[in-house]
Amino acid sequence: MGEAPSRAAVCRLDETDPLREFRDRFAIGPDPIAYLDGNSLGRPPKSTIERLRRVLDEEWADWLIRGWSKTWTDLPTAVGDRLGAVVLGAAAGQTVVADSTSVNLFKVLHAVCDLRPNRREIVIDDTNFPTDRYLVAAVAEKRGLTVRWLTPDVMGDVTAERLAAAIGPATVAVVLCQVDYRSGALANLDGLTRIVHDAGALMVWDVCHSAGVVPIELDAAEADFAVGCTYKYLNAGPGAPAFVYVAARHLPDVRQPITGWFGAEDIFAMAPDYVPASSARRMLSGTPNVLGLVAVDEGVRLVADAGLSRIRAKGMELTALVTELADAWLAPAGAEVVSPRDPERRGSHVSVRHPDARTITDRLIAGGVIPDFRNPDLIRLGLSPLTTSYAEAWDGLDVMRGIIAA
Amino acid sequence: MGEAPSRAAVCRLDETDPLREFRDRFAIGPDPIAYLDGNSLGRPPKSTIERLRRVLDEEWADWLIRGWSKTWTDLPTAVGDRLGAVVLGAAAGQTVVADSTSVNLFKVLHAVCDLRPNRREIVIDDTNFPTDRYLVAAVAEKRGLTVRWLTPDVMGDVTAERLAAAIGPATVAVVLCQVDYRSGALANLDGLTRIVHDAGALMVWDVCHSAGVVPIELDAAEADFAVGCTYKYLNAGPGAPAFVYVAARHLPDVRQPITGWFGAEDIFAMAPDYVPASSARRMLSGTPNVLGLVAVDEGVRLVADAGLSRIRAKGMELTALVTELADAWLAPAGAEVVSPRDPERRGSHVSVRHPDARTITDRLIAGGVIPDFRNPDLIRLGLSPLTTSYAEAWDGLDVMRGIIAA
Repeated sequence: MGEAPSRAAVCRLDETDPLREFRDRFAIGPDPIAYLDGNSLGRPPKSTIERLRRVLDEEWADWLIRGWSKTWTDLPTAVGDRLGAVVLGAAAGQTVVADSTSVNLFKVLHAVCDLRPNRREIVIDDTNFPTDRYLVAAVAEKRGLTVRWLTPDVMGDVTAERLAAAIGPATVAVVLCQVDYRSGALANLDGLTRIVHDAGALMVWDVCHSAGVVPIELDAAEADFAVGCTYKYLNAGPGAPAFVYVAARHLPDVRQPITGWFGAEDIFAMAPDYVPASSARRMLSGTPNVLGLVAVDEGVRLVADAGLSRIRAKGMELTALVTELADAWLAPAGAEVVSPRDPERRGSHVSVRHPDARTITDRLIAGGVIPDFRNPDLIRLGLSPLTTSYAEAWDGLDVMRGIIAA
Repeated sequence: MGEAPSRAAVCRLDETDPLREFRDRFAIGPDPIAYLDGNSLGRPPKSTIERLRRVLDEEWADWLIRGWSKTWTDLPTAVGDRLGAVVLGAAAGQTVVADSTSVNLFKVLHAVCDLRPNRREIVIDDTNFPTDRYLVAAVAEKRGLTVRWLTPDVMGDVTAERLAAAIGPATVAVVLCQVDYRSGALANLDGLTRIVHDAGALMVWDVCHSAGVVPIELDAAEADFAVGCTYKYLNAGPGAPAFVYVAARHLPDVRQPITGWFGAEDIFAMAPDYVPASSARRMLSGTPNVLGLVAVDEGVRLVADAGLSRIRAKGMELTALVTELADAWLAPAGAEVVSPRDPERRGSHVSVRHPDARTITDRLIAGGVIPDFRNPDLIRLGLSPLTTSYAEAWDGLDVMRGIIAA
């Protein structure tokens, strides 16, 4: 291991950072010293605060019910299309913003069961995020299917070989996260999708930990379905609505079980029978959450302004810096970096394993550095390229060094 | 029919209105002349705008991820308990605020099927709101059950006799709206629940059109489940989260199908298997929508300040005034009031039937009066006691008289 870079060297990285102006576009106070959890909850964009003010004072107060015939009714598809284009590599008409990731995944899981009625197994890795595991298990049970649990060889790192060995003619669908929520391992979206298709199964991507920070090419990869949240790197706020992508080729055949009025072809006809919308709007259920939708819209616009390739480049630099500092400062005290070493193989957070992770996290937070603890022994250091500066990351690791050594 | 009251007489009602100060607690502009659609979307409370500003500037920006361990994680149950106490007549621990009415009803419908596994029919009236009809039909089909469609004798007015004749030992559950979204007919919540229980079935109340404007006594009536929205008389804004009530006696046995992480007993344990929370939190699925939840909280606080008995009293006065004006001014031009004549038998809107309802509605909106059109021939006049003044209702009907006579 080499010498860790000095703070001065790191400050020079900030000076030449092509995204440096973006930090000023967020509401950022003096506390904390280092916010290393933008991968759990992104910071508030100033434009979002301003837009929400306008929606409250002008749209809700002045338009009143007329808002639905002006812009609100179309927000789930309009914001979905923009998110698709900017974040997902998805042509228009395939993405809607609505509900939570859990609810969307539930809809998608039932849809894939309907699309592969003669198959009997859903495949998911056993290190997947709880909501995904819980929902796959519950839907499989309800549909009389079994779950095939895939064990990645490195934590969260699903290889082509392991996937290929786990699937076959019985496989309904495979559910994987593009970026593992614990290790940050970045899956080969394109290659794994191809393997799943070779078995005649459907591929469902959870892109919660990649949306807005890693380029995603769902159309190019011919992915079937994707779900994800907007409160991480898309900075849409706590509990903002999630999104769901359905490949255009599946849309005519997709049915989802929560047949609420906003998914009907003619919402306000209030017809006797439910006829699903011919568009991706059929994935909707209840009345859209307007405040949440405009917050997603603003978050997506910021990513568009910055450009995903610049965001990704800085994300790789930031994770490289944190890995280097952790190797130099934390490894000697027993904290091991468990995220992939190759920046191309990881998302935008770095996970460090330590037996006292819980206590260390508490002391970090008390010391003005906010990471995330993940049961049982991981400290996640999230780097959000639009708001995290190199100096902030350095300062966070510097505080961590003192705490772990103490 | 007697003489319609003069505008001056109606202004005197406003002067002595015990709720007159509440209108000033909402953001109300000069336009429209009369907003008669608070039963579709309530106006924004000033306290909500202020609270959301604080949540954006102070909670989200300053707390960041720490918000979840401060207050946000508990919002669905804390706001649910307050809403239960103020609006639903429900003791703590039975109500959560989350998702949309559609998603909540979907969960409840699956739960009731599980609770009555040996029965085969769900009963719902054929004039129920589209989302309710669509979901009952879809869930029944998925669960291998049939739907028994109940036809009310007057539009939306479900009588004890008709209900009793439609149910029996095969009935899983009955789904009814307490206030019919078209006619405004107010069901006898207590009496109908008893009839359903006499048949050994479960009672699911949709209280969308009664929550916040009609006293609801779910516990006293021993109702089993209820769902409802918050953007009507609770004034929580377009697409604000909905709520679901589960009677405490059912909670230990209730399972709902969307088993997302926020419904798990220990959310952040991220355990291998889903164990539902022992509390009403088991009805949750995904990450709670914080902005929506605080808006619901503020809306409920306003109702608490005003008191539901005063709100109900003014609601009955307002609907009586509108009925009187419609009889005097509109009936001669062919517009018939279809809402119940007895104020005790209706909610807080009055529906007028006219063959040209669609055109009349468009001309009303162009003329600065906002009602709601309901397919095919109804004009709904919503009276929201916290914001609708008697003069506003009078002015709206005055404009309507000119348009219908023209």
